[in-house]
Amino acid sequence: MSTIYFEDIGVGDKTVFGEKKVTLEEILKFARKYDPQPFHVDEKAANDSIYGGLIASGWHTGGMLMRMMVDNMVNQRAGLGSPGFDDLRWILPVRPGDVLRFESTVIETRRSTSRPEMGVIRAQIFLFNQNDEKVLSVKTIGMMKTRSA
Amino acid sequence: MSTIYFEDIGVGDKTVFGEKKVTLEEILKFARKYDPQPFHVDEKAANDSIYGGLIASGWHTGGMLMRMMVDNMVNQRAGLGSPGFDDLRWILPVRPGDVLRFESTVIETRRSTSRPEMGVIRAQIFLFNQNDEKVLSVKTIGMMKTRSA
Repeated sequence: MSTIYFEDIGVGDKTVFGEKKVTLEEILKFARKYDPQPFHVDEKAANDSIYGGLIASGWHTGGMLMRMMVDNMVNQRAGLGSPGFDDLRWILPVRPGDVLRFESTVIETRRSTSRPEMGVIRAQIFLFNQNDEKVLSVKTIGMMKTRSA
Repeated sequence: MSTIYFEDIGVGDKTVFGEKKVTLEEILKFARKYDPQPFHVDEKAANDSIYGGLIASGWHTGGMLMRMMVDNMVNQRAGLGSPGFDDLRWILPVRPGDVLRFESTVIETRRSTSRPEMGVIRAQIFLFNQNDEKVLSVKTIGMMKTRSA
């Protein structure tokens, strides 16, 4: 497969992939290390919480999103990393057994004026669950090499 | 220790804590699972990359931030979770051996009009490294129980 450069990406471009199955074991393992709040690590406490059951750490959902991106997008691109992202929202809880699907739409492409060998791609990303409900929304910022530089 | 409620928090309140030591082993373990890009998992490739060495996945840095918050803030508060966050920026790479320090300043407190038993706290958070350089910036949104409700 040929590498994708900045010039190959246009506003409105849509990328869809999945599935990522979320397991109880993975939820517990991540949360015990990085987010040991009761509703992430303790099934009994989670059942009694406002969430009505164990849910994934939001940072874990972000990690799963990242892994889906690396496996399906990042490795095909002349990427230069990311300075961050905007407007992350955990819309609905992610629960054991959920199956996540990824959808990205490019909202802005801009060549760097200070570094013409680089372009910036902004995208609106959603994660959906198996019921086609949005569980996560985030606007990403990715830097890519330009083909012409 | 008594529980901290929404009314106990004011704009300008500052919370500082640390330290969190970042190890090579932890960087590799996280990245192999959630962000296996060469500069996160392959020391040779990382040395040849624009980063000049292995760096932590940005989502890993977020996970470490979350764990610091759970251990030092969240467990003392009548928290109701978070809908997300804004304007996350990875300002500088986080490398093996770095020691992270956390600083949070409250920028907005607002009682929910639709749910008066709840308030929303927005904070500007920075992570610093051992050289007092900012490595991460993010604006968090936290929901808390009100004492009066």
